[in-house]
Amino acid sequence: MFESVLGCSILKRAQNNGLAQLVVHNLRDFTDDAYRKVDDYPFGGEAGMVMKIEPVDRCISSLKAQRDYDEIIFTSPDGETFNQRIANCMSMMENIIILCGHYKGVDYRIREHLVTREISIGDYVLTGGELPAMVMADAIVRLLPGAIGDEQSALSDSFQDNLLAPPIYTRPADYKGWKVPDILLSGHEARIAEWRHEQSLERTQRLRPDLLD
Amino acid sequence: MFESVLGCSILKRAQNNGLAQLVVHNLRDFTDDAYRKVDDYPFGGEAGMVMKIEPVDRCISSLKAQRDYDEIIFTSPDGETFNQRIANCMSMMENIIILCGHYKGVDYRIREHLVTREISIGDYVLTGGELPAMVMADAIVRLLPGAIGDEQSALSDSFQDNLLAPPIYTRPADYKGWKVPDILLSGHEARIAEWRHEQSLERTQRLRPDLLD
Repeated sequence: MFESVLGCSILKRAQNNGLAQLVVHNLRDFTDDAYRKVDDYPFGGEAGMVMKIEPVDRCISSLKAQRDYDEIIFTSPDGETFNQRIANCMSMMENIIILCGHYKGVDYRIREHLVTREISIGDYVLTGGELPAMVMADAIVRLLPGAIGDEQSALSDSFQDNLLAPPIYTRPADYKGWKVPDILLSGHEARIAEWRHEQSLERTQRLRPDLLD
Repeated sequence: MFESVLGCSILKRAQNNGLAQLVVHNLRDFTDDAYRKVDDYPFGGEAGMVMKIEPVDRCISSLKAQRDYDEIIFTSPDGETFNQRIANCMSMMENIIILCGHYKGVDYRIREHLVTREISIGDYVLTGGELPAMVMADAIVRLLPGAIGDEQSALSDSFQDNLLAPPIYTRPADYKGWKVPDILLSGHEARIAEWRHEQSLERTQRLRPDLLD
């Protein structure tokens, strides 16, 4: 499931350039039965399957024996909500494990005893933690110096200064009568910078006033 | 980038079973220059590249000529925040286009004139809209009747009743001294249901009191 995403774009380039290393571990490799079972029925008769504790414990233990980890993260819709501040913070860590939940969830003892932090990428339910892990990896890796072509570009992203980005335009200046604002064609750097800041403020006030609190 | 995710798990099964159809369109197929350029420099000299309006307009027009669309969604960090309510609502739509931003963003006229709804999957910046599109597809498709094996399982997910899910456990009942709560081993259905509800409430109150407002 990770292959085409990790082999693409920013994540691939960061790995090729030695900025980050992303390794996918298959929990089935840490089972000891013939069926390589990683899930089982829940106690108490609820619907859905539950990820077993042993393969997860074995996998995490084997990784921890090789290096120290800053965080062992479990992706869960009821975890702390991922945001740009957390991404910034994690981009300065050395090693992170992201445990991807699947099925109905994981045995709760994994969350109590093995995981150091629970993170949600938003208030919605997904089939598994794989997409959230890819989302976090992308958000974090693109902040590593050198990961995106133009460092200036990451600094002017939405959220980095708690303001939404201003509108941007490219050629043609007139498309079917839809025009680029004159100010952007004026060549007047200082006024353009001022216009951008005003637009950022206005958009943030209108669309996301909570960011200004 | 979509290949291994769309070919996996719930999204693959839903497509195989005729519950949903997911088609990836490459904007480069809607360019008319030799380099199949979909991006260009921004007006006003900001850093980063901007997605051009023509290929997007052509792609959307060609799709709209074939069928009606309920929404043309643009994934953007400053859009309306995606949540389970929106996922529920979109799972009842017929046809949706999700336009994935990339580079520094898209020409703002696309957002003003071609897009019907802007959605963010969370307050963080990603390299492109591809992962958000996959996240939305997963959240929506798994709600289609028949998409996940056990329909009961989706109904008891976090958020569906504005409560976080209760802890779940599977065998062994005792792992390295970490024990499953006795009540779940009691076989007493009514008391187990009551315990689950209490746990849901307690976890929601402690972790996400905002959901109870």
